[in-house]
Amino acid sequence: MQGKVLSMTGVKNVEIKEFELPRVENGQILIEVLKSNICGSDIHMWEGKHVFKNHVLGHEMVGRIHTLGEGVATDYAGEEIKEGDRICPVYYLTCQRCKACLDGNFNVCTHGSDYMGQYADVYPHFTGAFASHYLIQPNQYFYKVPNNIPDDIVAGANCGISQMYYAIDEINMPSNAVVIVQGAGGLGLFSSAISDSKGANVIVIDSVASRLEQSKKFGAKNTINMKDFPSKEERLEEILRLTCGKEPDIVIDVTGYPPALDEAIRMTKIGGTILELGSVSIDEDQCCTIVPGLIVRKCLTIRGVLRYQPWYLHKTLQWLSKYHDQYDFANLTDKCYSLAEGQLALTKAANKEVARAIIDPQKDIDLGDPVKWAKNLYVDHCCTCPAAR
Amino acid sequence: MQGKVLSMTGVKNVEIKEFELPRVENGQILIEVLKSNICGSDIHMWEGKHVFKNHVLGHEMVGRIHTLGEGVATDYAGEEIKEGDRICPVYYLTCQRCKACLDGNFNVCTHGSDYMGQYADVYPHFTGAFASHYLIQPNQYFYKVPNNIPDDIVAGANCGISQMYYAIDEINMPSNAVVIVQGAGGLGLFSSAISDSKGANVIVIDSVASRLEQSKKFGAKNTINMKDFPSKEERLEEILRLTCGKEPDIVIDVTGYPPALDEAIRMTKIGGTILELGSVSIDEDQCCTIVPGLIVRKCLTIRGVLRYQPWYLHKTLQWLSKYHDQYDFANLTDKCYSLAEGQLALTKAANKEVARAIIDPQKDIDLGDPVKWAKNLYVDHCCTCPAAR
Amino acid sequence: MQGKVLSMTGVKNVEIKEFELPRVENGQILIEVLKSNICGSDIHMWEGKHVFKNHVLGHEMVGRIHTLGEGVATDYAGEEIKEGDRICPVYYLTCQRCKACLDGNFNVCTHGSDYMGQYADVYPHFTGAFASHYLIQPNQYFYKVPNNIPDDIVAGANCGISQMYYAIDEINMPSNAVVIVQGAGGLGLFSSAISDSKGANVIVIDSVASRLEQSKKFGAKNTINMKDFPSKEERLEEILRLTCGKEPDIVIDVTGYPPALDEAIRMTKIGGTILELGSVSIDEDQCCTIVPGLIVRKCLTIRGVLRYQPWYLHKTLQWLSKYHDQYDFANLTDKCYSLAEGQLALTKAANKEVARAIIDPQKDIDLGDPVKWAKNLYVDHCCTCPAAR
Amino acid sequence: MQGKVLSMTGVKNVEIKEFELPRVENGQILIEVLKSNICGSDIHMWEGKHVFKNHVLGHEMVGRIHTLGEGVATDYAGEEIKEGDRICPVYYLTCQRCKACLDGNFNVCTHGSDYMGQYADVYPHFTGAFASHYLIQPNQYFYKVPNNIPDDIVAGANCGISQMYYAIDEINMPSNAVVIVQGAGGLGLFSSAISDSKGANVIVIDSVASRLEQSKKFGAKNTINMKDFPSKEERLEEILRLTCGKEPDIVIDVTGYPPALDEAIRMTKIGGTILELGSVSIDEDQCCTIVPGLIVRKCLTIRGVLRYQPWYLHKTLQWLSKYHDQYDFANLTDKCYSLAEGQLALTKAANKEVARAIIDPQKDIDLGDPVKWAKNLYVDHCCTCPAAR
Repeated sequence: MQGKVLSMTGVKNVEIKEFELPRVENGQILIEVLKSNICGSDIHMWEGKHVFKNHVLGHEMVGRIHTLGEGVATDYAGEEIKEGDRICPVYYLTCQRCKACLDGNFNVCTHGSDYMGQYADVYPHFTGAFASHYLIQPNQYFYKVPNNIPDDIVAGANCGISQMYYAIDEINMPSNAVVIVQGAGGLGLFSSAISDSKGANVIVIDSVASRLEQSKKFGAKNTINMKDFPSKEERLEEILRLTCGKEPDIVIDVTGYPPALDEAIRMTKIGGTILELGSVSIDEDQCCTIVPGLIVRKCLTIRGVLRYQPWYLHKTLQWLSKYHDQYDFANLTDKCYSLAEGQLALTKAANKEVARAIIDPQKDIDLGDPVKWAKNLYVDHCCTCPAAR
Repeated sequence: MQGKVLSMTGVKNVEIKEFELPRVENGQILIEVLKSNICGSDIHMWEGKHVFKNHVLGHEMVGRIHTLGEGVATDYAGEEIKEGDRICPVYYLTCQRCKACLDGNFNVCTHGSDYMGQYADVYPHFTGAFASHYLIQPNQYFYKVPNNIPDDIVAGANCGISQMYYAIDEINMPSNAVVIVQGAGGLGLFSSAISDSKGANVIVIDSVASRLEQSKKFGAKNTINMKDFPSKEERLEEILRLTCGKEPDIVIDVTGYPPALDEAIRMTKIGGTILELGSVSIDEDQCCTIVPGLIVRKCLTIRGVLRYQPWYLHKTLQWLSKYHDQYDFANLTDKCYSLAEGQLALTKAANKEVARAIIDPQKDIDLGDPVKWAKNLYVDHCCTCPAAR
Repeated sequence: MQGKVLSMTGVKNVEIKEFELPRVENGQILIEVLKSNICGSDIHMWEGKHVFKNHVLGHEMVGRIHTLGEGVATDYAGEEIKEGDRICPVYYLTCQRCKACLDGNFNVCTHGSDYMGQYADVYPHFTGAFASHYLIQPNQYFYKVPNNIPDDIVAGANCGISQMYYAIDEINMPSNAVVIVQGAGGLGLFSSAISDSKGANVIVIDSVASRLEQSKKFGAKNTINMKDFPSKEERLEEILRLTCGKEPDIVIDVTGYPPALDEAIRMTKIGGTILELGSVSIDEDQCCTIVPGLIVRKCLTIRGVLRYQPWYLHKTLQWLSKYHDQYDFANLTDKCYSLAEGQLALTKAANKEVARAIIDPQKDIDLGDPVKWAKNLYVDHCCTCPAAR
Repeated sequence: MQGKVLSMTGVKNVEIKEFELPRVENGQILIEVLKSNICGSDIHMWEGKHVFKNHVLGHEMVGRIHTLGEGVATDYAGEEIKEGDRICPVYYLTCQRCKACLDGNFNVCTHGSDYMGQYADVYPHFTGAFASHYLIQPNQYFYKVPNNIPDDIVAGANCGISQMYYAIDEINMPSNAVVIVQGAGGLGLFSSAISDSKGANVIVIDSVASRLEQSKKFGAKNTINMKDFPSKEERLEEILRLTCGKEPDIVIDVTGYPPALDEAIRMTKIGGTILELGSVSIDEDQCCTIVPGLIVRKCLTIRGVLRYQPWYLHKTLQWLSKYHDQYDFANLTDKCYSLAEGQLALTKAANKEVARAIIDPQKDIDLGDPVKWAKNLYVDHCCTCPAAR
């Protein structure tokens, strides 16, 4: 049986390639990808800014078990699994042998992306989420998805939501904390929702009114539009006004804009904590200028967090199961594409014509199958995508 | 009875002023200053780079109780005290009411320096360490000095050593850690000694050979001279050679040179910790350029620490009592001056003609007193100062 | 002017004594006590089970500034204060000199209770909360009370609520935690409310149905009545049923019944944390039998917490200001007594005829004052007491 | 080729059984066991007090790679390995799926002992350390042994030393700490040595003079013989005498005698930490009576630790490489036996006729092989065993 993957073929170019589905060896699982999200890093790769080339794009996904390899009886929470079950894999592997793993920091495993980075043409081909199928490796964590979370929502669980959930658990957020979120993108919305679910008073800063509006549906008590408060000083003043003079306990920088760290340093209270998650590029020009004396004089803690410990995907799924309809996760993604529309979807996403695009790799596949056919009727109004309702 | 203080009178100028000793109110203590150190921040003030003006310089000191105010029966460790006892005060006060104090971060009390910053001409005058006497306020911590620690050594206990001792206690230094110390100044020597006393493998980086030699007497297992390894890449390579490939668990930046933080970020292992203590200026030009993506991708923790919780002076004195002769504290200061030589001492220190100058405010006072007279004979070879032996 | 205190005069006996109001020295504040709560430890003392004798009972209180001592211009949050302002003092002092203070553990200051324990007959007399007035000492923390918190509610802030708030901040409660509260007394209700406000899934265990009902108004998602589940095994099974198999992350023991710790050890998940706050008696017969091997094999952390760091009263008041009407604090106390009814109030409370009694020391005082007179009309239906509405 | 295992055959009985060496599958490694230690838990099992029966005894070991399975190119530190290399395996596996693993607490994996507990008669037979060979499973951590650590010393690295190293890293041992070690058995010696290497002032308590003497060679500054100080009160008084009044920051209970925890609670300073490692039995009669009020009033933290995170074996080997000849590890084991003498060795160890017995499974094997033959000459004076020198 054949499957399809959306492979990088050049800068800003992806193409569908078809391959025979791989053998499912001991310890492996082959899933049908139900939904996969376009993440900022996918766009980054598509634009040729990443070392990975010619690989299958996509890593945020939810799938349905197609074939279970020998010896796989449960997920990584010990739950029994069978074909047809909906599961969500951690998108990176852990080598358990690199210097990061040697300290138990599996989230930063230096070989974590080897699998997702391999060429589409190389067996086993199904190594990315923008594909009809995906092959989960032995020792790659995955979890059953709680029944009440829709596909569209859970597709993003294994990346930004888990990262943010892990990051917030890593610091000891004080009760009744004032939390500033810099940037109302996906990570910003997640940090707002998770912090709010822990009783924090969340203020989100961004320069796009619609994003700020959305953040209010993700737990933000207040928002600050940088257009209204163009300088750092004005923004800090507005924060103090909103909090009756209480300086931020925690600032979460998820802008992806390096100079935001400088502002975070200036906003955070004495003895406070900055979670730095947004900036992932290590290009020398992705830099910012800071005054280290402020870190000293304010006794700040700055904590960088990449990815998440694999078992945190399970905790995140539990949290989503409880909170996904309390926050506006249902409207997080705004447009759904078929795999065949992948190039279009990436172009639109890169041009910010859609905020968060989702791919449904089953949309245009196997029309002969009646079940799939029925599904295909939803082409124009796929499941929970708001654009489709 | 009159006493003397060394007062700022202008940029790069200090003069001795004489005042009647103050009344000692309830809860206060008047001490005779036995020795006081010239700290980098004193030079900074002397050079006019600090907001404080016209105040009595000096804050590192050890003294002898001259007069006990009513109600003061013990030090802050509950030890009974009496006139003549040698004590060491915390040089800053804590208001217990500012935003820092409100989080229990007394070390960053925003009013901590109010007392030391007041004008010399303003009563009670004896508010700095470069003086014959110093007035300890109610609610200002102080501790008896263990008998086995010489004056010259303990004079520096209440500033850099306590700060470093506190900072290292604040992080959880793993057993058998690789610790890099950037900068072999006073704080660098202290961090080397304290880390070594905790079993760390300490490597000190500096560009002055003599300072690196000295650091070996303060516990450094190895040193890296920036002249031999002029680039960051070469230094990191040398570290890995010295540690057989083990990347630094902890990097302590005590250079006072902001760009050192960038190198710290590049040197520290994945998941490691940077202690930032050296940079205290918050002038906008005291900045550095960093790549936040490195903090994220390496999951670093950067922790700024200013001063120390007041009770840490007690722990530091206990540590010094145990270790002061195991490390080369006896030769830390290289020149001793009288109060009358204060302007000279500050000039020499500012010009780096002496590494660490100490002031003996009792050297030229009360020559009529036979005991003091005998002491005066030591003018040219004061106590433990190496230059004098 | 005279004031009144309710003094211990023997086992299970208190009497009102009248004294001239004390001089208000520098740094002191004299307050009129507006409301004071009867705490379990007051009953303990009244029953003669505590070393304190002949002292003024009471430590939970809110008051109004009657006289400000010289030099007192702000509360410990730096807020300006004036006569008439409503404030709440930390009920214990910190000597800053004992072994606990020497580690910064002010909450366990070994001299913390010296002031409240002194004899009623000894000047300054007004050293307890069951009194018309109370004298706040220099260096005794106090905070202004946010306007929106009623007297009856805030009267208990400086004891159990602050202790629990502090304890929960001391551990790093994971997001979406399962928290078991053993005991639905005051501390149990507070722990339930605070944990719920941090997004925890709270289950409260007790053997009194009405207390369990009340806990649901304090954030408990579920309750377990020990009458329905008489054995440890049954209770654990019920917990797992309620949590779909998730074992408790955190167990908070506030029973005051030592053997509860054994059950806590058996309930807590591997790697979980037990907060032990309930048992405060150190009598040898207040013991329990545990199996240390369970602590080892489950890698448990048991953390005892007494009182709170003084500045936590401020954080607690902020939390109460935000949450007091979200949880059922308004109905926490069920009966209000005048000072003259003190003996009656203590008897009823000791006999558990009332759950949580509150004292209004101004009820029967100064009837000549029209305002007070009007207030006196409320004798039978005091302010917010549910019994009175 | 045949190999031998020492199998349980009944209570207090072991016998040698011979089996064909197993196939070495992908990811597995077969090692020749060079040395294996008799651990207290082996004796416990031998005495029939453990659920495991009919299995191969032994789990502390060092071996030499006999056969590398396909795909195994490095150890878990990424070091290249080849046949003949000396390696040390973590003795338990981690399922990555149980509730402990789901929190990243791999040290408490509830399936960790499944492999070592299987019957000797069941393939692959070589599942314990008292054997000529041992089969390391895929996903079972192992590390190359630094060249400078003798076999006899490293044989114990993967159990008690790693456990203690991990436990001490888990708490933040303050600089210059006072550490009390209860019990001078193996864990006691390790905790003394590791604490000393971190600059602690270690005092060891035991009732056997020779064990206390030995602890002094493992870093103990002082010892307390319970025969000289028979009561808890006397022992605490002696501690305070030895520390000039400083109460223990940390108490490490490694007695295996449950009531020691009660004494630990009484000895530890206010705010201090108890590491509980000694008691591993969860039989209901392995209990102690404690006063929970002491935990509360002293704000203690009690932390149980079982095993260690697998990667800690690597850290422990690095520490041993640095410190093994600074402490008296060379004389830790006092008698070496061949596999054939296994029953004798266990009997002597159980009867405490030897303190720490070691087994050399290669002593009586393959006499035809000249290299082995030469080795066999060491039968009466095996390598570093003190009894043999």
